[in-house]
Amino acid sequence: MRILIDMDNVISDFERGFLEMWREKYPHNIWIPIGKRQTFYPTDQYPPKLKEFVEGIYLEKGFHRSLKPVDGSMEALSEMVALGQDIFLCTSPLTRNKYCIVEKYEWVEHYLGKKWIKKIIVTKDKTLIHADILVDDKPEITGVKEPHWEHVIFDQPYNRYVENKKRINWKTWKKILSIDSNIS
Amino acid sequence: MRILIDMDNVISDFERGFLEMWREKYPHNIWIPIGKRQTFYPTDQYPPKLKEFVEGIYLEKGFHRSLKPVDGSMEALSEMVALGQDIFLCTSPLTRNKYCIVEKYEWVEHYLGKKWIKKIIVTKDKTLIHADILVDDKPEITGVKEPHWEHVIFDQPYNRYVENKKRINWKTWKKILSIDSNIS
Repeated sequence: MRILIDMDNVISDFERGFLEMWREKYPHNIWIPIGKRQTFYPTDQYPPKLKEFVEGIYLEKGFHRSLKPVDGSMEALSEMVALGQDIFLCTSPLTRNKYCIVEKYEWVEHYLGKKWIKKIIVTKDKTLIHADILVDDKPEITGVKEPHWEHVIFDQPYNRYVENKKRINWKTWKKILSIDSNIS
Repeated sequence: MRILIDMDNVISDFERGFLEMWREKYPHNIWIPIGKRQTFYPTDQYPPKLKEFVEGIYLEKGFHRSLKPVDGSMEALSEMVALGQDIFLCTSPLTRNKYCIVEKYEWVEHYLGKKWIKKIIVTKDKTLIHADILVDDKPEITGVKEPHWEHVIFDQPYNRYVENKKRINWKTWKKILSIDSNIS
């Protein structure tokens, strides 16, 4: 199978990185624990008056490079490859932070190695990419065409309301995607 | 139609930019006029002993941002959009020059405007992208799958030996691709 893996909040821990930097930078402001996050974009849940400060965190140079891998994600990617799956990393850039793209390439090289750089696809429209599965935490993914892939939700607190799609995390993926060594 | 447009030597004038910088930087070295270039990669035609210097030109920070548009390309893109075609810019990054990606985004923003940033797809494997046509100067384009698109050659001296594909430049594209206002 060809599987597209989204980056932010699927393999790179954007939510944790954001919260840590937010609390460090604004220790006297309110903060929302990760488990209580209810919107895809943090700016939609934090008070409107804080919007520019919230955005300021992830528009900052270095933010994307500083993110830690999501627990279990690096092992899962290696295992997918070992099981013969064809994996690509498929990410949409923040158009307001051009450096985030370079940082994502640096991040991938650092955590996964040079070989994986060739596996990165940067696109605002993921429906154009031909694959069997897209693993993504975003509740709805639209674009110029009907996608060929099946959207499998990567479980995050803010997407729990989505009920009509398969849902995985890095402990359950193999069972839910029916990927095992017999298939490879 | 959905049309993917490659960037280097299709809309951004890599060959001209390279040659100008080469002659400026190494005025006493040999140089190959654009019309006599016979290989896709300059390093395959320049003497092997000059390879690192040749590569040094386009691995340099700022090189990609400094390129000029290919004559007629900007007008052609605007016209394609005006004629109702769905255009995406589809580029493979130089994996050894990470900055080239950011510079390509900056280049697109500068010459085409912010809206076009959303139309950029960065991928090493273009066969994964679903479209009707890919306009690309590279003689052969392969990847993990059979592409959905038809490869239309963008005419350059070094790809003239390719005979089994449609060939366009920014004067002939409308006729050869049969794109006119009746279709849109």
